[in-house]
Amino acid sequence: MSGCPYFEKRHLLFKNKPPSTEEDEDASQAGVNKASKGGIIYGDYLQLDKIVSAQVLQSELKGNKIHDEHLFIVTHQAYELWFKQILFELDSVREIFISGHVRDERNMLKVNTRIHRIVMIYRLLVDQFAVLETMTALDFFDFREYLSPASGFQSLQFRILENKIGVPDNLRVPYNRRHYRDNFKGHDSEMLLATEKEPTLLKLVEEWLERTPGLEVDGFNFWERLEINIFDGLNKEKEKIEKMPDSEEKEEMMSELVKQRELFTSLFDEKRHDHLLSKGERRLSYKALQGALMIYFYREEPRFQVPFQLLTSLMDIDTLMTKWRYNHVCMVHRMIGSKAGTGGSSGYHYLRSTVSDRYKVFVDLFNLATFLVPRHWVPKLNPNIHKFLYMAECCDSSYCSSEDSD
Amino acid sequence: MSGCPYFEKRHLLFKNKPPSTEEDEDASQAGVNKASKGGIIYGDYLQLDKIVSAQVLQSELKGNKIHDEHLFIVTHQAYELWFKQILFELDSVREIFISGHVRDERNMLKVNTRIHRIVMIYRLLVDQFAVLETMTALDFFDFREYLSPASGFQSLQFRILENKIGVPDNLRVPYNRRHYRDNFKGHDSEMLLATEKEPTLLKLVEEWLERTPGLEVDGFNFWERLEINIFDGLNKEKEKIEKMPDSEEKEEMMSELVKQRELFTSLFDEKRHDHLLSKGERRLSYKALQGALMIYFYREEPRFQVPFQLLTSLMDIDTLMTKWRYNHVCMVHRMIGSKAGTGGSSGYHYLRSTVSDRYKVFVDLFNLATFLVPRHWVPKLNPNIHKFLYMAECCDSSYCSSEDSD
Amino acid sequence: MSGCPYFEKRHLLFKNKPPSTEEDEDASQAGVNKASKGGIIYGDYLQLDKIVSAQVLQSELKGNKIHDEHLFIVTHQAYELWFKQILFELDSVREIFISGHVRDERNMLKVNTRIHRIVMIYRLLVDQFAVLETMTALDFFDFREYLSPASGFQSLQFRILENKIGVPDNLRVPYNRRHYRDNFKGHDSEMLLATEKEPTLLKLVEEWLERTPGLEVDGFNFWERLEINIFDGLNKEKEKIEKMPDSEEKEEMMSELVKQRELFTSLFDEKRHDHLLSKGERRLSYKALQGALMIYFYREEPRFQVPFQLLTSLMDIDTLMTKWRYNHVCMVHRMIGSKAGTGGSSGYHYLRSTVSDRYKVFVDLFNLATFLVPRHWVPKLNPNIHKFLYMAECCDSSYCSSEDSD
Amino acid sequence: MSGCPYFEKRHLLFKNKPPSTEEDEDASQAGVNKASKGGIIYGDYLQLDKIVSAQVLQSELKGNKIHDEHLFIVTHQAYELWFKQILFELDSVREIFISGHVRDERNMLKVNTRIHRIVMIYRLLVDQFAVLETMTALDFFDFREYLSPASGFQSLQFRILENKIGVPDNLRVPYNRRHYRDNFKGHDSEMLLATEKEPTLLKLVEEWLERTPGLEVDGFNFWERLEINIFDGLNKEKEKIEKMPDSEEKEEMMSELVKQRELFTSLFDEKRHDHLLSKGERRLSYKALQGALMIYFYREEPRFQVPFQLLTSLMDIDTLMTKWRYNHVCMVHRMIGSKAGTGGSSGYHYLRSTVSDRYKVFVDLFNLATFLVPRHWVPKLNPNIHKFLYMAECCDSSYCSSEDSD
Repeated sequence: MSGCPYFEKRHLLFKNKPPSTEEDEDASQAGVNKASKGGIIYGDYLQLDKIVSAQVLQSELKGNKIHDEHLFIVTHQAYELWFKQILFELDSVREIFISGHVRDERNMLKVNTRIHRIVMIYRLLVDQFAVLETMTALDFFDFREYLSPASGFQSLQFRILENKIGVPDNLRVPYNRRHYRDNFKGHDSEMLLATEKEPTLLKLVEEWLERTPGLEVDGFNFWERLEINIFDGLNKEKEKIEKMPDSEEKEEMMSELVKQRELFTSLFDEKRHDHLLSKGERRLSYKALQGALMIYFYREEPRFQVPFQLLTSLMDIDTLMTKWRYNHVCMVHRMIGSKAGTGGSSGYHYLRSTVSDRYKVFVDLFNLATFLVPRHWVPKLNPNIHKFLYMAECCDSSYCSSEDSD
Repeated sequence: MSGCPYFEKRHLLFKNKPPSTEEDEDASQAGVNKASKGGIIYGDYLQLDKIVSAQVLQSELKGNKIHDEHLFIVTHQAYELWFKQILFELDSVREIFISGHVRDERNMLKVNTRIHRIVMIYRLLVDQFAVLETMTALDFFDFREYLSPASGFQSLQFRILENKIGVPDNLRVPYNRRHYRDNFKGHDSEMLLATEKEPTLLKLVEEWLERTPGLEVDGFNFWERLEINIFDGLNKEKEKIEKMPDSEEKEEMMSELVKQRELFTSLFDEKRHDHLLSKGERRLSYKALQGALMIYFYREEPRFQVPFQLLTSLMDIDTLMTKWRYNHVCMVHRMIGSKAGTGGSSGYHYLRSTVSDRYKVFVDLFNLATFLVPRHWVPKLNPNIHKFLYMAECCDSSYCSSEDSD
Repeated sequence: MSGCPYFEKRHLLFKNKPPSTEEDEDASQAGVNKASKGGIIYGDYLQLDKIVSAQVLQSELKGNKIHDEHLFIVTHQAYELWFKQILFELDSVREIFISGHVRDERNMLKVNTRIHRIVMIYRLLVDQFAVLETMTALDFFDFREYLSPASGFQSLQFRILENKIGVPDNLRVPYNRRHYRDNFKGHDSEMLLATEKEPTLLKLVEEWLERTPGLEVDGFNFWERLEINIFDGLNKEKEKIEKMPDSEEKEEMMSELVKQRELFTSLFDEKRHDHLLSKGERRLSYKALQGALMIYFYREEPRFQVPFQLLTSLMDIDTLMTKWRYNHVCMVHRMIGSKAGTGGSSGYHYLRSTVSDRYKVFVDLFNLATFLVPRHWVPKLNPNIHKFLYMAECCDSSYCSSEDSD
Repeated sequence: MSGCPYFEKRHLLFKNKPPSTEEDEDASQAGVNKASKGGIIYGDYLQLDKIVSAQVLQSELKGNKIHDEHLFIVTHQAYELWFKQILFELDSVREIFISGHVRDERNMLKVNTRIHRIVMIYRLLVDQFAVLETMTALDFFDFREYLSPASGFQSLQFRILENKIGVPDNLRVPYNRRHYRDNFKGHDSEMLLATEKEPTLLKLVEEWLERTPGLEVDGFNFWERLEINIFDGLNKEKEKIEKMPDSEEKEEMMSELVKQRELFTSLFDEKRHDHLLSKGERRLSYKALQGALMIYFYREEPRFQVPFQLLTSLMDIDTLMTKWRYNHVCMVHRMIGSKAGTGGSSGYHYLRSTVSDRYKVFVDLFNLATFLVPRHWVPKLNPNIHKFLYMAECCDSSYCSSEDSD
């Protein structure tokens, strides 16, 4: 970055001037320039020879250089660069979960920070469409034919990203009746297959949720207590309503109550859950769902504050991925019209179909909003469990040696 | 881009299905997949082998891999990628001006669109700081020492960009008492020197403004008419005020009037202009300034609508470059504190000093706001000049053969 | 705005100091404070007594103040404030079209600037969801019950906005099987009905497009020339392909050609157009469609540069309205889950169904991307028509007296 | 918000349908419309009669309606609306600190969420300038005179906000040599004076930092241990360097070491701290500074994760306030030029002078970046203190009754 002073010579130790007054007349001229003294320089560090030489216009190669193709290339390269970063963060988070380090609560800050960073990158990527949208359909038309058959369906990193977060093979919308992996060959195809088999972020979060302290049947037994409280609450409501004089309102309230009872009966019905799971309408195990709801209800407990933030960030990622898809659809509509696509393809409609809850990996975290209850129905923690929650998993002996660099 | 259908096989002709109803059941599955039939594929087209393999962590090389260095690298690479694009647009605009094509008004759309694209990219670059800000000072400290002596001051593209837009050598704030070019060696240094000698965007815009139709002394003679109208207007104000009964308000208004007269006297004082020019407080020639003010006042004339948009976009670029610098300063403050910098450097103060009107290339376009006058003081166009403005430079014989691809 | 100096005392004339050097030591202290001298003050000007006293929490009225309700109110008020501004711009643009002023090309800058402003406001409104998303489903649940039966469906301004832009009654998705106007009573309902009958932006743009110079059958006759050129072009392609030796590629190209011919045959089929129009799949008249395509193809002609920008901005508005809807859906999903809604409602699914091309008013401008052709197929302008385009509608006698304030 | 279904009728209990399959054909039509059944409606709830009737154009009152004044008013109203929200959040956070509730760590989520919300609002406010920037200097000139003497300096809420966060009276840049409070009269002026005397966010955070567990001299005694470790570390460095053969590099490293020692000597010099405090160059007490550095170094301890996030968000607010000021300056430059301002005022220069570290309330949190040390110099926690940190302030007996609504 231009003139960025934190990019500077440091020997064996960190070097700072003692603070002086802010108004220092010559503060901006006091340094010694060490750029010439050996060590790595900016352009080499960033491998800019690769980065800024990678823009080859097909239209130019074919003797008809079209100005806007350059933007097209750079924009897609910027997307891929950021996909690389997202994958790097995602892999590091998955690694923390896989190695069990997340049981050491000290790692939660790291997990949260990195997931939040993915959120921030996605926000940028959504905004980035505004740049490509400075190209009109007419500009695009001029070089479109030269791209054949290159296709965004061939973005390996994007598919890996979907796989590693947890978009399952069987919920994908096929494109032109073919499997998404058919767009890739050899090594790439194998790599994709491999990522389908690795533990996804969804799976790892699920396992972590299943371990939520307080779920133990022989302990606080959150789920049973919750069920009792809810149906107690509903029964009290019913009694109240029954005492009302007959009226349209009474009838309405009673019918509402019946619906509520049905709703909550469904929540506590494990078989129904498994059925929805098999259809892809739920994605978390029954136990994990319990853990998530527990974190929701007790989010202000110190032990659950950071986990609650994590669940929120996971929803952010889902939302932003889906907004990215939608922005993409909008741009494609503008570039090629709704009926377009080539060779009989149907890109616009395909893309629209991927802006769907089927692609929302953490859809259960959203849908839990359906099962909220008044605060006084939430089981009270007793002092023991309160303390327990607070200390949970704190006393591993390894905390002093845990590594910060990974 | 994932699943992007406009990236698709096209043979000799553009291929689209005839539109059918939007609800097409199988619209999303109707295509034929041609990815396997030869031609260039996505990853090769974008040279992703270069792009996503260019992240080498110095901390890792030195045996102490620090996670956040990856973000640091990717962010800077993304900046350089976009700088490349900005330079590409800037060069194409300069080329249109240099080759005289801008006299063919048909090129104004292109110029405007590309300058506007630079605006949009800068907006993204300003927002992009939010991503790097997910790294804390503590994270940065862990790998900072490995970067030595790489420095953002060594960003060749950024310096070229400044030069080509029109940041002049003599207005630059020196860094550590050294010339900015001393951070570069050999070929890079020569390239920088070369760009200092090329016509800058500022210079080219200046020449274009000097040709503004209506400035001709033997024609509409805008400048003289304006001067007459303004001083007429001021005189009438004076008479009006003089007729008022004595009061504090009258006095105040009279003193205000005197200031106004001084202000406008200064506007029409060419020597004073040249003096300010020599000090770097003005940057456009006297004639160009006249052209700019003319475009301001007659911006609604069809002939001047697009030129007016161009002037507005040039201010946008200036403003965004300065916002970029300021965001950069804020980030550096956060990363290394205000007193920091290394080896006796003074990065924070240096950077702050570059967030200055000295670095605003089109500062005159902003400062013209000081010289606005009521609409009825603006000289009226007569029907002839009106028509003239409208037809200006339209009748070149070459328009049919002008190339759109460049 | 805090410390905003452009908000300052000005008497009868505009008052500026003569410029001096930028480094003016005391430049920041040289003024005279006139705030105390009478005239309107900031808070009264902005009617802040109304604006900042309009936050009454229902939860507080009902004895259970919930903190986050304040954010909920302020966010919605901010939306309504901006809707007011959008309506103000929209009405002024419609007024220019209705009064015929747009025929005076001098008004195009105004039209364009105001439409672009709507674009910028919509961008802000899309971003604004990020603020409301700091409220979680659990926070919302705490005061949700107090809002009954207030509903966003009752936003009068939003419905008026849809009507005035051109969302037609018959393409609206019904909500709970009821007409959208049933959410409104008395005066509001009548006002909505009235706006349904006013000329929409779509209608006005359509009429303007129908007047595109160059469409005249007894003049340049763009449409006929285009048809001839396209089918000539296709025939030449056919001949070329027929000369190729038999191969799979040849067959493919021939079948592609057939599709192209079908596609363009459909473009020139007025009956088909009217059929699609009756189904709501097209929204512009046949003649207006021709005008739009003409502006697309000749966008670099000085006469068409600003009209082309206008068409682009209209697509921006459509896209942003649809992104706004989609962001809204995402937020609702997060707040109440996918199955939620109350009283048997189905808000999430309803909202999802409005994120549809049915609500894209200028959908034809997008879909024209399907009908682009190589530049050499576009009919050449002869010098006369070129000049004509350039001078079109310039010579109205009223330009000198046209009012800038409206 | 338009069509927003979470704004809907709810009786005594929360009402949700039992989940069914996502593909529900008629899911979007299943509801019962209850808007007509009494209760509050949308427009009344939001008091839209006040909000959307508060746009009175001075130019219109004076018989010369200028279109763009409407945007000017709405933009400033939107700013004030959001200032109201920021103040609401800020007051609630200050209240939690004042009442001592923050000692109950359960309140930290609330504090963090609300501070983060302020961050998100500020981000929007920074972006919002893009809307007002669609107005040019020339448009503004047309109605500027009618605003006199209304001035943004008179924004009561903005001044209150500055006061409550902690911009101190004595660090303010005077405007036209007058005290900022002189722009206000009567009740407003008194209110401002009152807010100067209330505990600022800075003060409250300072007190909270002073209580950071681990600072106790008779306990973990962080500060003494840190001092010992740092000087031990520096001494070991020195020995290492002394063993090197003489060389330029050795000399340089030794001189660097001397600077480091000076730097850290200054850190542990309480008198020097108090001196800087008295000059306004530091803003936190010596003890609070220790607490902040402790949170920095042990940020991964579960007990310190959320506090660390809070410190980060406080820096975000500072940065965003300063970006807001800078964006404001940029817009003013564009609207009135650098030399402008009226009645001898000097708005642009005044505003530029407020974009200064003097207005950064939490400047110490930035400057602590100067005092970072390698991780192995940070004193190790022993198992006891580790546990202590983790349990700190957990066992208040009141947790069950703590109120969530405030």
